[in-house]
Amino acid sequence: MVEKLALVGIGKIARDQHIPAISGNPNWSLEATVSRHASVDGVASFETLEALLEERPDISTISLAIPPQPRFSYAEAALKAGKHVMLEKPPGQSLAECFALEALAREMDVSIFATWHSRFADCVPHLKSWLSSRELKRLAIVWKEDVRHWHPGQEWIWEPGGMGVFDPGINALSIMTEILPHAVHVCEAMLEYPENRATPIAAKLKFTDPNGAEMTAVFDWRQEGLQTWDIEIETTDGDARLSLGGEKLEINGELIKSGSNNEYPNLYARMSELVRNGASDMDMSPFIHVCDAYSLGRRITTSPFEY
Amino acid sequence: MVEKLALVGIGKIARDQHIPAISGNPNWSLEATVSRHASVDGVASFETLEALLEERPDISTISLAIPPQPRFSYAEAALKAGKHVMLEKPPGQSLAECFALEALAREMDVSIFATWHSRFADCVPHLKSWLSSRELKRLAIVWKEDVRHWHPGQEWIWEPGGMGVFDPGINALSIMTEILPHAVHVCEAMLEYPENRATPIAAKLKFTDPNGAEMTAVFDWRQEGLQTWDIEIETTDGDARLSLGGEKLEINGELIKSGSNNEYPNLYARMSELVRNGASDMDMSPFIHVCDAYSLGRRITTSPFEY
Repeated sequence: MVEKLALVGIGKIARDQHIPAISGNPNWSLEATVSRHASVDGVASFETLEALLEERPDISTISLAIPPQPRFSYAEAALKAGKHVMLEKPPGQSLAECFALEALAREMDVSIFATWHSRFADCVPHLKSWLSSRELKRLAIVWKEDVRHWHPGQEWIWEPGGMGVFDPGINALSIMTEILPHAVHVCEAMLEYPENRATPIAAKLKFTDPNGAEMTAVFDWRQEGLQTWDIEIETTDGDARLSLGGEKLEINGELIKSGSNNEYPNLYARMSELVRNGASDMDMSPFIHVCDAYSLGRRITTSPFEY
Repeated sequence: MVEKLALVGIGKIARDQHIPAISGNPNWSLEATVSRHASVDGVASFETLEALLEERPDISTISLAIPPQPRFSYAEAALKAGKHVMLEKPPGQSLAECFALEALAREMDVSIFATWHSRFADCVPHLKSWLSSRELKRLAIVWKEDVRHWHPGQEWIWEPGGMGVFDPGINALSIMTEILPHAVHVCEAMLEYPENRATPIAAKLKFTDPNGAEMTAVFDWRQEGLQTWDIEIETTDGDARLSLGGEKLEINGELIKSGSNNEYPNLYARMSELVRNGASDMDMSPFIHVCDAYSLGRRITTSPFEY
């Protein structure tokens, strides 16, 4: 059965990832887009979600690829109209919003999916399975990229709710929470804020692991040259290194997988499964770690940031 | 059936509130205290929780009245020893900690109670019931107190995880989340940090209400003279004012209740009920609002604070 879908927010991530993933999945049909500024050739285009909901009752599913700040009101309107909803990461600008959406989806008997795309990289299930039979000694996340390159001119990311460096950092946390066999919690955090910005440009986190493993994360948006999205893992029975944000996995120095990236195809396959089963997936654990880092963190003011 | 209880942390709140409340409830017997510095006349005293757990297997329940930063490790040890656990507010220094404790209590088949004492003030159920049949138009929390008076020399409150002005503010949020018939979420926050401190001295919050009511909270620790712990409520059918932190309730200008404060006796009665029913109560909604305010908030640096 083919589900009719509308994509809201036609920016870089929509064109690079969502549209190819939807087109490549026979269970989905991209029927419409919502954007004030952009459209997709051959697809019905609406300027507002209200107009879409009004004119296209046949569409069952709304995928939101807009910044997190307005996401709640779009998701709420879609759920209230009885639509299934798929949320780009982060799923909102506050935890309470996300819990409210989850409750609303349950009430409306529709599916909601807080997507964490990095968790759906092909290497992640392999690493999770490898780790499940081993005792973790150390896990170190190093996520260093150049914000000017990856988020050119994106002012919303520096505004409250825009998450700053946690926008990429939460990708690493979504992998970490997926592969670990048990829950951990942030026990220390240090956040660096440019003096002219509302969100951090760098952060260091330390976690408490129930079994005493050493766990840290370093996020930095000021990395020029080589970009780093690595998770290094040491166990009592070998080491692993997940790099390129989940695209490359080495175990004991040997290359296991590399080069494939099916994150968004996998997300849309998962959404299809959720809709078919009348289920939802709103795991908030990556977002909870970010909120804990904010509430627990020491703040340092650093030099102003301008694009 | 009388449950044997040990109280951990013998500070001001323990002496002022916990000990009288325990003594006044025939279902509880205060069998021991844990503190490095203090003890209670006539009650067995231990310097560490480990020693207590080792020597007094007959004690069923551990009540933690220590600062939030070390609370997790005490609660975890008590739960792992099969004890019921009662947590002073805030229940921990991170949300992930609290969710982990909830899961551990379920696994160990014991009760855990994240207490929110202000919620147990006598006026709160009255106000909740009055509000349940009315449509809210405006809710304004004004919580202004003198930190030098109420938290003299308490350095932990200014350290990461100590919550700063959210330590009293979360009391107001615990009342708000109790009396409202539906969930709301923080949509704007402004946090003022003394330049020499890791936690805020003042905060302003704005909430989004699904029915469009105007909802705000102002927390300030710099209040000299008259202290204010008020929640003002306007509905389409009358006004209410909860003041003195929940001790006084006026409706349409008329005094409904005043002067009684059974918060801690009510907490221990509730804990007794939870233990009897094999239930837990870990409502995190007040803490979630605080974490959301931290992650969403704009930060302002203000003059240094010294006691």
